[in-house]
Amino acid sequence: MAETRRWYFARRPQHEIEADTLQLRTETLPALAEGQMLLRTLYLSLDATLRLWLSEWDLYIDPVKLGDPMKGFVVAEVVDSRNPNFAVGSLVTGLGLWSDYVVTDGSGYSPMPRLPGLPIGEAFGVLAIAGPTAYIGLHEIGRIKPGDTVMITAAAGAVGMITGQLARIHGCRTIGVAGGAEKCRWLKQELGYDEVIDYKRGNLVEQIRAVAPDGIDVLFENVGGEILDAGLTCMKNFGTVVVCGLISSYNDGEQRTPGPTMFRNVIMRRLRIEGFVVLDYIDRYPDYQQKLAAWMLEGRLKYRLHVVDGLENALESLKLLYSSGNNGKLMVRVAGDA
Amino acid sequence: MAETRRWYFARRPQHEIEADTLQLRTETLPALAEGQMLLRTLYLSLDATLRLWLSEWDLYIDPVKLGDPMKGFVVAEVVDSRNPNFAVGSLVTGLGLWSDYVVTDGSGYSPMPRLPGLPIGEAFGVLAIAGPTAYIGLHEIGRIKPGDTVMITAAAGAVGMITGQLARIHGCRTIGVAGGAEKCRWLKQELGYDEVIDYKRGNLVEQIRAVAPDGIDVLFENVGGEILDAGLTCMKNFGTVVVCGLISSYNDGEQRTPGPTMFRNVIMRRLRIEGFVVLDYIDRYPDYQQKLAAWMLEGRLKYRLHVVDGLENALESLKLLYSSGNNGKLMVRVAGDA
Repeated sequence: MAETRRWYFARRPQHEIEADTLQLRTETLPALAEGQMLLRTLYLSLDATLRLWLSEWDLYIDPVKLGDPMKGFVVAEVVDSRNPNFAVGSLVTGLGLWSDYVVTDGSGYSPMPRLPGLPIGEAFGVLAIAGPTAYIGLHEIGRIKPGDTVMITAAAGAVGMITGQLARIHGCRTIGVAGGAEKCRWLKQELGYDEVIDYKRGNLVEQIRAVAPDGIDVLFENVGGEILDAGLTCMKNFGTVVVCGLISSYNDGEQRTPGPTMFRNVIMRRLRIEGFVVLDYIDRYPDYQQKLAAWMLEGRLKYRLHVVDGLENALESLKLLYSSGNNGKLMVRVAGDA
Repeated sequence: MAETRRWYFARRPQHEIEADTLQLRTETLPALAEGQMLLRTLYLSLDATLRLWLSEWDLYIDPVKLGDPMKGFVVAEVVDSRNPNFAVGSLVTGLGLWSDYVVTDGSGYSPMPRLPGLPIGEAFGVLAIAGPTAYIGLHEIGRIKPGDTVMITAAAGAVGMITGQLARIHGCRTIGVAGGAEKCRWLKQELGYDEVIDYKRGNLVEQIRAVAPDGIDVLFENVGGEILDAGLTCMKNFGTVVVCGLISSYNDGEQRTPGPTMFRNVIMRRLRIEGFVVLDYIDRYPDYQQKLAAWMLEGRLKYRLHVVDGLENALESLKLLYSSGNNGKLMVRVAGDA
């Protein structure tokens, strides 16, 4: 029988993910039953939310149970099939396992078209999670209007890099918050952010006020903590805070993080603060993906992928997200471009 | 010339309001110029937000400046007039001064009709601030629907006591959170709350889960701190948090209060958290007040006023709000019912 490597959730981390949090094991694959198929994983998407799936928080999704295989978003190729809905050679995407191969009846996976002109890695990296997240956050939750001043935190991250460009396409003025001069330069010169703020330079409120003296209409929040506080301080009356992520607290474990100290501005500035989870919108993915793919092909939507080779490096790579160590959308190439 | 007593903002409190925060002085009134009128204050409304007007927070309104007269919501009678828009003997309401008499051109004041069957104190106590606040919060911000489970904190306070009844009139199931057995008994037996929770008994999350095992659709928040955290913990997916007040932090002064530790639930439960200020809706007051007055006259809307006699007691009385020392809508009777 064929074998596969597969990551398992071995030990719950108290704070940072550690070397023994997940364990890579080799196991034998079962033969395909009627209705099943064999998937070969091409890429894993490494997303900030994965840390939460290893926690005991009360989540928007079932967490990974201790001892179970690690879950994540994947793109895979059908290499054998006894399921008429999935042809050999076709691609699928969905919530899969961190594994070279998977035997599945297909539940949780959707077909993914091959897009002429877009390599699989790029299509998956932008269209599977980050792109729809940016689109939904801006349009469905933030309800951005042309002329709005939109501030995006973790602007150089997977979601942030897309968000700023989509806001600009819609006619908004964009401010990106990122860490370090190189990321800020890239956001402004390559991605077309109108303004950038390097949070490592401190004095966030002053920096924001310098570029947005009239305040922020829509804050697209990916970080939380002091960065969110600075944003809340600088909101316009009747502004909107789209809460997409709060990565600064994801390693806190069971310890309760103090919330935003400027929470009172929800009243003082009459804010709407609204959170969302991209998975709730999965039925509308084809619509979002069509728009996003067109902009990618036209060169209007730029992106930077940070691809790590080898399933065996997945755990170590995941840690990069929580130390801002990634440089673009973080992915693991398990079996290369097919 | 006639004299008046008037409260002035004398010393900024660091935390609790103190005996020297405001100072009562006696001064001479000017003669009426053309276009002016002389108001005799009947009642002051004591509202939790007044503490903020004495702070250095960045507010939704101009604060009271050190050395300036104290502001507040009042109902007053026109006792002399050189302004054709305000007849002697008529009533006005608005943002006035803590003063026996005021000379004004009328800006900031609106006429208040005398409602047959409703004493001025009752009409002012319910219709000026608390009633419209409850109505706007539930309908404009909370968008309550019949069948919703609505939890109201500070449920025995001026706004809370009205909010629960309006939610019930709309067909919602209501849970009131208040401090102490007497208040809880009153909410349930007299005001018709479906469930009551005494926060002084502790274990808030357990208490909420016992009466709302499926969670809360709409949380009407007046308090903040641990009470808000418990509410956030028990929200349903896609629920709404109406932030009307955060009284637990109003005495914190310049010290920044940690925000809600369960803020992450804005994502996990996909919440909309929205704040509002009743003053933004002043144009629509007549509509709200007409509905509220009709329910008062029909006996469907009950209330409890906590009336303190004498302008000289205004400062001491205001402190009651921040120690839950009031028992119903807190007001100062300056010149009795006219």
